[in-house]
Amino acid sequence: MYESKQISSLQNPLIKKIGVLQDKSRERKKSGLFVLEGLRELQLAVKGNYTLDTIVYQGDLISKDVLFDSLDASLPRPNIIAISKEIYAKLAYRKTTEGLLAVAHSKPHALNELVLPSKNPLVLIAEAPEKPGNIGALLRTADAAGLDAVIIANPKSDLYNPNIIRSSVGCVFTNNIAIGSTSEIISYIKDKNIHCYCAALTASKNYTEVDFTTPSAIVVGTEATGLSQEWLATSEQNIIIPMMGEIDSMNVSVSAAILIFEAKRQRGFSS
Amino acid sequence: MYESKQISSLQNPLIKKIGVLQDKSRERKKSGLFVLEGLRELQLAVKGNYTLDTIVYQGDLISKDVLFDSLDASLPRPNIIAISKEIYAKLAYRKTTEGLLAVAHSKPHALNELVLPSKNPLVLIAEAPEKPGNIGALLRTADAAGLDAVIIANPKSDLYNPNIIRSSVGCVFTNNIAIGSTSEIISYIKDKNIHCYCAALTASKNYTEVDFTTPSAIVVGTEATGLSQEWLATSEQNIIIPMMGEIDSMNVSVSAAILIFEAKRQRGFSS
Repeated sequence: MYESKQISSLQNPLIKKIGVLQDKSRERKKSGLFVLEGLRELQLAVKGNYTLDTIVYQGDLISKDVLFDSLDASLPRPNIIAISKEIYAKLAYRKTTEGLLAVAHSKPHALNELVLPSKNPLVLIAEAPEKPGNIGALLRTADAAGLDAVIIANPKSDLYNPNIIRSSVGCVFTNNIAIGSTSEIISYIKDKNIHCYCAALTASKNYTEVDFTTPSAIVVGTEATGLSQEWLATSEQNIIIPMMGEIDSMNVSVSAAILIFEAKRQRGFSS
Repeated sequence: MYESKQISSLQNPLIKKIGVLQDKSRERKKSGLFVLEGLRELQLAVKGNYTLDTIVYQGDLISKDVLFDSLDASLPRPNIIAISKEIYAKLAYRKTTEGLLAVAHSKPHALNELVLPSKNPLVLIAEAPEKPGNIGALLRTADAAGLDAVIIANPKSDLYNPNIIRSSVGCVFTNNIAIGSTSEIISYIKDKNIHCYCAALTASKNYTEVDFTTPSAIVVGTEATGLSQEWLATSEQNIIIPMMGEIDSMNVSVSAAILIFEAKRQRGFSS
C-alpha cells in the first residue's frame, strides 16, 4: 500500500483550512464544509450518509485499516492523509484517544425537504436554543428515542459547531434535522396535521395527562425566556412537568427527555 | 448604618482564604468550609439550613439590603464585607450578574444520620459519579422531583466543588444528601426495606414495567463503566430505557431524570 508522507507543517493549506472550519461558523457556511473529530463520530456520519472530503489521522493513535473499515466501500473514498503528532495535538480537542479528524460536506436541513418516516410522527421542536451543549444533548436524546425529526427554530449557532457535534456524541449526523423560522415551522406542522404540545408555565396540563399517541410535536423553548407567543398561540395544549422542590426549572435537555420518553411510553416504545 | 471600608487587596487574608477554598478540595475538607457564589445559591443555602460564615459583595452589583433580605433574621448574622470590583472580578466565576460570594460551613452528609421524610420513600443512588457537571445535574433533577434523598456512593469529587454547586444551581443545598461506600449504602437500603432498581444493560426490564410505588431506590452508575457487581447483586430488578436509535447510551443525568419522573408518574406526583 502506498503510504504518503505525513503532514508536519502548521502552514500546510489543508491544516490551516481545518483550523478555520473549526473556528468560524461563517467559513463553514460559505464552504459547505465542517470538521468532525473521533471514530464514533466518523462512523455515525457515514451512517447518516454524509459525504466525506478528507480524513486526517495520526498513525500512532489509529491505524489506516480501522479507518477503512469505518467507511462505506460503495462510496468514493475520501482523501486520507497522515499528520504528525504535533499537528494532531494542535487540531484535536480530545488529545489522547481518538486520532482522527475529517472534513465533511454539510447538509442543507431545508424544512421543505423534511420527510417524516412515520405516518404517526413524533417530533421534537426546539425554539432558539442557545447553548451548543444543550442542542447536542437534545440530539442525543432524540436519537435514543428514535424520533421522526428534530426541528430547530431560529438557532443561535450553526449545527456544525464543534461543541454541538461533540456534545451530541455524533447524533447530529443520525437525526433527521430541519431548520427554519418559527412561522415556517408552524405552517409545516399545521400542514401535516401534527398536534403541538408546548412546554410552558401557563395554562398547562401535567404532561402525563395529554395524549401523545396521535401525530405530535413536543415544543421546548429556552430556559431563560421560554417559548415565544407565536408558539403558544399554536399550541394544542400547553404542558408542564410538576416541580416539587425548591427550584422552578430544569435544564431544557433534561425536561425534553422526560417529555419525549413519556410520549414513547404512551406509544409502547414502537418506532 | 456603619459601612466598613471595602477590601481592595488580593493579599487580604480573607480574600486569599476564599481563593484557596474555591480551588482546593483538601482545604475544604480540613476547614469544613466552602465558597458559594450568587444570590439564588445564597438563598437556597439559607433554605437548606446552612450556616454562613462570611459574605463578600460588590456594592455596584448588589445592595446590602438585598443581601439582608436573603438571610434568616432569626439566625446570627454572618460577617458582611464589601469588596472592590477588581477583587470581585478575580474571585467570581460569573463576572457580571451576581455580585456576591459567601463562605459557609459544610454538612457531614453521614449516612447513619440520613432521615427519610416519607414512609414510602423514593431515593436516587449514584455510584462513583465522576463529572461535577453530572452530579450537579442529578441534584437539580432530584430537587425538581422532590426526592426523599440522594445517596452518593464513593464520589470522585467533594460535594462542595464549585462546579457541582454551580451546575446544581444551588440544589446541592436543598436536597437531602448522604455519602457512603457502596457496602454501607447497601446495608442502609436493606435495613429500610427499600427496593433497588439498578440501571443496567443485562437482565433488565423496560423501566416502565416495574413498580416504583413501594419504597424504591433508582441506582445509576457512570456512563463509562456502569454499576459495580455489588450493586447488581443487590438489585431487585435491573431496569433499562429502550434505545431506539444509533447510539447505545444516554447521559447519566438525562437517563436518571427519565427514570425518576416515571417513578413520580406512577406515584401520582405526590411527595
